[in-house]
Amino acid sequence: MKQEAERWGLFELELNGPCSGNPFVDVDLTAEFKYNNRVLRPDGFYDGEGRYKIRFMPDTAATWTYRTRSNIAELDGISGEFVCVEAGEGNHGPVCVSNQYHFAYADGSPHFSFGTTCYAWTHQREDLQEQTLATLKSGPFNKIRMCIFPKHYDYNLVDPADYAFQGSVSGGWDFRRFNHVFFANLERRILDLQQLGIEADIILFHPYDRWGFSTMDRESDDFYLRYVVARLAAFRNIWWSMANEHDLMRAKKTEDWDHYFQLVQELDPYQHLRSNHNWQGFYDHGKPWVTHCSIQHPDLLRVKEWRNLYRKPVVVDECCYEGNINHDWGNITAQELVRRFWEAAVRGGYAGHGETYVHPGDILWWSHGGELHGDSAERISFLRSIMEEGPGGGIDPLPMTMLDGGAGKAGEYYLYYYGNQRPAFKKLILPPDHDYRIEIIDTWNMTITAVQELVRGDYRVELPNKQYMALRITVVNSSRTSIACGKQGERSLRIF
Amino acid sequence: MKQEAERWGLFELELNGPCSGNPFVDVDLTAEFKYNNRVLRPDGFYDGEGRYKIRFMPDTAATWTYRTRSNIAELDGISGEFVCVEAGEGNHGPVCVSNQYHFAYADGSPHFSFGTTCYAWTHQREDLQEQTLATLKSGPFNKIRMCIFPKHYDYNLVDPADYAFQGSVSGGWDFRRFNHVFFANLERRILDLQQLGIEADIILFHPYDRWGFSTMDRESDDFYLRYVVARLAAFRNIWWSMANEHDLMRAKKTEDWDHYFQLVQELDPYQHLRSNHNWQGFYDHGKPWVTHCSIQHPDLLRVKEWRNLYRKPVVVDECCYEGNINHDWGNITAQELVRRFWEAAVRGGYAGHGETYVHPGDILWWSHGGELHGDSAERISFLRSIMEEGPGGGIDPLPMTMLDGGAGKAGEYYLYYYGNQRPAFKKLILPPDHDYRIEIIDTWNMTITAVQELVRGDYRVELPNKQYMALRITVVNSSRTSIACGKQGERSLRIF
Repeated sequence: MKQEAERWGLFELELNGPCSGNPFVDVDLTAEFKYNNRVLRPDGFYDGEGRYKIRFMPDTAATWTYRTRSNIAELDGISGEFVCVEAGEGNHGPVCVSNQYHFAYADGSPHFSFGTTCYAWTHQREDLQEQTLATLKSGPFNKIRMCIFPKHYDYNLVDPADYAFQGSVSGGWDFRRFNHVFFANLERRILDLQQLGIEADIILFHPYDRWGFSTMDRESDDFYLRYVVARLAAFRNIWWSMANEHDLMRAKKTEDWDHYFQLVQELDPYQHLRSNHNWQGFYDHGKPWVTHCSIQHPDLLRVKEWRNLYRKPVVVDECCYEGNINHDWGNITAQELVRRFWEAAVRGGYAGHGETYVHPGDILWWSHGGELHGDSAERISFLRSIMEEGPGGGIDPLPMTMLDGGAGKAGEYYLYYYGNQRPAFKKLILPPDHDYRIEIIDTWNMTITAVQELVRGDYRVELPNKQYMALRITVVNSSRTSIACGKQGERSLRIF
Repeated sequence: MKQEAERWGLFELELNGPCSGNPFVDVDLTAEFKYNNRVLRPDGFYDGEGRYKIRFMPDTAATWTYRTRSNIAELDGISGEFVCVEAGEGNHGPVCVSNQYHFAYADGSPHFSFGTTCYAWTHQREDLQEQTLATLKSGPFNKIRMCIFPKHYDYNLVDPADYAFQGSVSGGWDFRRFNHVFFANLERRILDLQQLGIEADIILFHPYDRWGFSTMDRESDDFYLRYVVARLAAFRNIWWSMANEHDLMRAKKTEDWDHYFQLVQELDPYQHLRSNHNWQGFYDHGKPWVTHCSIQHPDLLRVKEWRNLYRKPVVVDECCYEGNINHDWGNITAQELVRRFWEAAVRGGYAGHGETYVHPGDILWWSHGGELHGDSAERISFLRSIMEEGPGGGIDPLPMTMLDGGAGKAGEYYLYYYGNQRPAFKKLILPPDHDYRIEIIDTWNMTITAVQELVRGDYRVELPNKQYMALRITVVNSSRTSIACGKQGERSLRIF
């Protein structure tokens, strides 16, 4: 039993208890963790072989006390304390919504979402899982969409080694008994991701199923969700995705999703981010238990519309994948995927990556992980660096014409992007009394070129007459002009 | 006075009458043209210098009689007859809606719409107008969007030689007196287009105005429309576009457009096609006086949605222009414009062309005409030839996934297109008992390659793993299998 944990780290209380009957069903276990007036009550869970665990993520560096409750005498009333020390290096806490349309870590550091997708990577053989981690380590991604249940689909016909439930393909599943071996691997991988600074966007349900996990009844779904939240909620890098393509799960209705959302909201002491990913029909992201939009859509020009509609962060985590497979969602070019990332960024949203190249061994990043073969990741990394150099609170859409994208922070920072557009020039009307740094960004070739030292007044920017260019304009408050900076009714920057 | 006209040609009755007062206002003139029970009553118009004209487009090869009516005695009760002979070569009559979502000429020949845009070409100097016609002659276009009123906008700051109204820039305009010199040139150009087999999509109003033509009052608008219809309706290659970007004409409301549509519908004896082109907000194309959708929108994947909504032909005559000017609607690549044409085609719709390259003399095809500098026109020509080789009644959308485009005529002809998609292969499930010709079309390089002689049963098509490829699949009813072709419940062709 650890007696110390770091802030947003994992404190785990392990207890021994009964292993007869069905402990998953028979044993109730919870604990109350207290620091001053702050009280959190995570559920415990049965981990097999007579082991019971209660996991807790402290959010304040202080001495916390705890006391268990159980219907089993030997697990009830166990109390103690532990010291929560300050967060270690690289630990910024869980990601939360910040500044309405953006994200930040609990310690206030910005989190610009650059996700990828490897639905079934933890269901692959050990060496492939390790390769996935190695790829992630050198890549630009800080979120990964991944399923608890295995995937049945084209290119996904091999049974995994372990399943969330006890049972077998031939003999069927016991939806009231979980497989702790499966969860131990899943948790190990979540911690591996945490080490890499990557959020695990955990997909709780999905339709690509030949085992019956997508058609369990309501009670089994609830039982499963309670167990998963008890096991995983204390990992700081968890996001909850109710489903991948909820609208393809014909057995579930909107009320079911409402219910699952609310159940997870009730159970999760830390209120990790919650979303529900669509196929063709959006779940109503405006509902109060939804923290952000998780969208599948190929048209990133609509990000602004979705921001306005739902008033929440917009993450288009599926906007087609770089690749060349036969399916229409999995065969765009790297140029096109990178374009979609930029179109989202300059409308105040976030896109997501995936890769689906035909592979002799049918190992496709989008589901299996492994290696990346494409050209988009390094450009996504470049965009990420651009975003991280910009305002920490994120950038919001500027008044623009329909097709040009532009976002920024008025009076400070402006980022314009021309993806399918390729203007030979743009005219800038720069509000007076400031100097401006104007940089031309080639988003594909990853170059940044300042047009001249500093610019003042109106200016015509010559552009290289090709696709995928961006303009970054930064206001420089020279000392001579600093007095005028904050004045009311200042003209806004215009570009046309 | 001609005593003969060809079917869908122009019969013009010229009369002399008063030139004192204001004949445009004072004189009412109409005529009744009869053949058996068929009676048409076109309005006449004052052509200046004491000349009055009544124009008539006969639609039946027969002897027609006519008799004028006027409030002026010398113009009233004039009667006569003329012989309408069969249409000459290249004269297929006016274009009408056919097969609900498509077009055909009055003689039944298909019309696949491949339009371009030269808003103000007839307002340019003579040699430029001639150059425009020469360019059109060798190009793929069979429709042109063009304005009656001159254009005021970036790159459009030169006053034209003539205006529709009498008056002057300095002295103002008389909205009750038309300028016959202006109309004579316009009509000459409409006839030039007719000779080239090009429909003149006449834009009656538009917002880009510094002369006051966009803000005339209702009575002046009506007066203008009556005159224009009287002059132009008898040209078989006229289409009526109520406006370019009606929603940018702040002085006009939806009721105004309803009224203008209905007035033109009432006045035009031949019921030429009528539409209303949007900027950002569509006019309701479902209204009964609208014959087809005329749409500005960059996303051609939505053609199917608009077909389903309006149940009429969808012409996206503005989907951004090939070019490199600063404005976001005028700087896409040729590849992208050609892609948009194809995306529309394989969803049962029609796209439109325009070109806006920066030019040292500010002569941009989109408004001035002149020469084409881009690379899209020849690919549009290639698409036109593909369409003309297909079913004459047009092709309609097939059941498809969201992004792949496919249209055809079930059991006969299938055209699939992968624009941003670039699958390395596609799997075909071909209904049995037929042979299929499968051709791979490189829409950019304009090649057509048959995959092998004929295919039967399931088939995997290997594709060259690049953008802008199409598949054309034609059913070949070999004699052995012809009996099975029409059978009920036949499996449909599937592709994935």
